[in-house]
Amino acid sequence: MAELETELREGEVAIALPPQSDAGVYFIGTIRTPWPTRRDCPKRGSLDGPSCSIVVDERWREALTDLAAYKRIQVLYWMHHARRDLVLQTPFSSMLTTGTFALRSPVRPNPIASSIVQLISIDGTTLQVRGLDCVDGTPLLDIKPERGALAD
Amino acid sequence: MAELETELREGEVAIALPPQSDAGVYFIGTIRTPWPTRRDCPKRGSLDGPSCSIVVDERWREALTDLAAYKRIQVLYWMHHARRDLVLQTPFSSMLTTGTFALRSPVRPNPIASSIVQLISIDGTTLQVRGLDCVDGTPLLDIKPERGALAD
Repeated sequence: MAELETELREGEVAIALPPQSDAGVYFIGTIRTPWPTRRDCPKRGSLDGPSCSIVVDERWREALTDLAAYKRIQVLYWMHHARRDLVLQTPFSSMLTTGTFALRSPVRPNPIASSIVQLISIDGTTLQVRGLDCVDGTPLLDIKPERGALAD
Repeated sequence: MAELETELREGEVAIALPPQSDAGVYFIGTIRTPWPTRRDCPKRGSLDGPSCSIVVDERWREALTDLAAYKRIQVLYWMHHARRDLVLQTPFSSMLTTGTFALRSPVRPNPIASSIVQLISIDGTTLQVRGLDCVDGTPLLDIKPERGALAD
């Protein structure tokens, strides 16, 4: 939890979060990348970037059936290091204050990221992909084929 | 809950879900569409389709700051009618059994949908958009600008 930010930059506004959540998500696997901390991560994943692993929990093995037919997949994951209570943010890159929903920052009420990645291979419950930009150990939420992305 | 499916079609496999969830999501608003049930929904949203409303909860009002600069936004929502325990599914449209992660079906461990929609207008905390295909009353999870989708 050392990466949790608690200080506010100029212009940033935090609100009180709702007293309880409305639904629960299951972490269905783990994403392994070369980047141990958020500071190490590229700003945006590249299809030319390094191969990363997605390790799906054994419970969901059969759900991978036929996925190898796709060359591009959508990966949803949980940005577990991000705070959730900012409505206005001042990104360090621009130092311009703007609304959370006008940013793709990890800091948001529900820290769910969506990436389209290239599927290289599947071996058992481990996928090799290119195009991710998240920290090593990020919890996996979902895998879906990108629309119309059947392999040649 | 009348729409919850409990029967299995040929080839479908249900598993035991984990005993508890790993993180909680907040419903941050409600999506209003012309489709009262899943049966009424189009199979896929179209940018030529009807205008739908996204009503953001008052708590998150400031997070909409500057969003109007974007012409296309990504909307994440929770498909609250879908069961979560199928690893193999037999879609009615094809009657071919395949893995949950090789489908974009609402039925998945975490029923999170992602749609890219056209942003028509924002009035207070209500957005008008085109391109959704979900049932009326669907809970909203997130709004983000599509990458590179600044309005002209």
